[in-house]
Amino acid sequence: MGETLGETGEFGLIARVTTGRTYGPSVLLGPGDDAAVVAAPDGRVVATTDVLVEGRHFRLDWSAPYDVGRKAAAQNLADLAAMGARGVALLVGLGAPAGFPVADAEELAQGLADEAAVVGAYVVGGDVVASDAVFLAVTALGTLDGRAPVTRSGAREGDVLVVAGFLGGAAAGLAALRAGRTDLAAVSAQRVPEPPYDAGVALAEAGATSMIDVSDGLTGDLGHVAAASGVGFEVDVAALPWHPAVAEAAEALGVDPVEWVLGGGEDHALVATLPAPVAGWTVVGRAVAEPGIRWLGVGAVPASYDHFA
Amino acid sequence: MGETLGETGEFGLIARVTTGRTYGPSVLLGPGDDAAVVAAPDGRVVATTDVLVEGRHFRLDWSAPYDVGRKAAAQNLADLAAMGARGVALLVGLGAPAGFPVADAEELAQGLADEAAVVGAYVVGGDVVASDAVFLAVTALGTLDGRAPVTRSGAREGDVLVVAGFLGGAAAGLAALRAGRTDLAAVSAQRVPEPPYDAGVALAEAGATSMIDVSDGLTGDLGHVAAASGVGFEVDVAALPWHPAVAEAAEALGVDPVEWVLGGGEDHALVATLPAPVAGWTVVGRAVAEPGIRWLGVGAVPASYDHFA
Repeated sequence: MGETLGETGEFGLIARVTTGRTYGPSVLLGPGDDAAVVAAPDGRVVATTDVLVEGRHFRLDWSAPYDVGRKAAAQNLADLAAMGARGVALLVGLGAPAGFPVADAEELAQGLADEAAVVGAYVVGGDVVASDAVFLAVTALGTLDGRAPVTRSGAREGDVLVVAGFLGGAAAGLAALRAGRTDLAAVSAQRVPEPPYDAGVALAEAGATSMIDVSDGLTGDLGHVAAASGVGFEVDVAALPWHPAVAEAAEALGVDPVEWVLGGGEDHALVATLPAPVAGWTVVGRAVAEPGIRWLGVGAVPASYDHFA
Repeated sequence: MGETLGETGEFGLIARVTTGRTYGPSVLLGPGDDAAVVAAPDGRVVATTDVLVEGRHFRLDWSAPYDVGRKAAAQNLADLAAMGARGVALLVGLGAPAGFPVADAEELAQGLADEAAVVGAYVVGGDVVASDAVFLAVTALGTLDGRAPVTRSGAREGDVLVVAGFLGGAAAGLAALRAGRTDLAAVSAQRVPEPPYDAGVALAEAGATSMIDVSDGLTGDLGHVAAASGVGFEVDVAALPWHPAVAEAAEALGVDPVEWVLGGGEDHALVATLPAPVAGWTVVGRAVAEPGIRWLGVGAVPASYDHFA
């Protein structure tokens, strides 16, 4: 057994995970003081918080601490992308028992930093507390670079629906892990999502009228857009971008993959509406006046995921 | 028993605690989308995160959920004040069991909102997750209104030391609660601190060279300033601002109150250095070249609080 958090202490861990790190010019004051100072060049900051609890949102017997760090960062940075924003900074709260290995905490911090680096962001602050459960609370700060935020409420009848990224991979991976099939490629999608960050800005610049990231499943998340916008949707299920690992997992596990593609979250695909088709974005459906969502080409669809359901 | 989180669900709770709330002009987009958008008028945002775990940072048998919400907001807003910043927005992650009463979650949210309102800030976003333990992860965003941030590292030999707010009240209150003496006034200081928010901006404008909020105890927190600034301090213990409730608790519990005043955190007093005395701020010590802290007028002092120690 290596050193534990109880031995290193709160300040010791913070020193270990911050010493020697460098920061870009958007970080005006990094970790180590009462608060960090981050550039907000257009006079606005976009902010979102997500919490992950061990045993519910990740399992340390299924995912390495490094992967958990990446995933925690990714799901917050995907929320920024869904506004058409670019991630600039992360703040991280970590709860862990005194017996938690310092090496695991360092790997977790490295995962957070590496995923942040994908979009040019940095971990600028955080807090470490003793807790029976392991949990992570991540806040992401971003910039719109002068653009208007793309909300959930701007879809209008006649808009076309597009999806950036893939659907169903993380859900397929979860099913694979539950079945002990760590040999299946989908497992990687569950451990570390790869949100299409750049597509968020690109879709905003292409004139997206609404956008959301698929964190709880397309059925539920598209339902949020429909409700906020006061429209309904028709979706061509066959046109949806299945994650490349879905088919293999479906065959290996004997599961209808539509369940994962429509009901699975955690891939953090971006779903957006555009006033008209735009080259480069495959149309997967359209906004209609009648409320509700009609899934063309399938029967019953699974319910969305509610953390207390 | 009233309704529980498990019955209301994540989205139900969020709807309950956000419906009908109004926001000031600094909130460009409030809760309900993938992320919030907050004004950062001088092109910078100050950001800090703190995590509170039930049984460690608060006890629901000692504090009402409303008070826990106020305290969680206060300790983050105090971190902003310690930079010379003014709080603008809070984001809140809540972990709680499915059996947690919705009414308690609503009170907790109201406490967060009410404490934010003290400085003119708003709760703009958050996340609710199922968790065996109750915990809160709060991120505060603030603005410097064009000022330079006041860090821990700017104290220079010859600077005078001042304290805004009070010391020892929260520690005295904790001792009172442990002794079952809820009749003592110090209990309120433990349940809901009253950080001197306005003093943070005022001290920055008065030319503070360094500042910190006393969250872990003056001995430790002043030690952070000393280390970051490369100075030492002489502190006139008799000049320190004892919390008004300390004396009563000390007499009732038979404890030397110096332990609470020097070693107790959670009152979130602000400790700052100034190049010279400024009218309105009582000088309690001075920065000296020799490292370390000399407490004038007392013997041994208690160690600082480490969350894993």
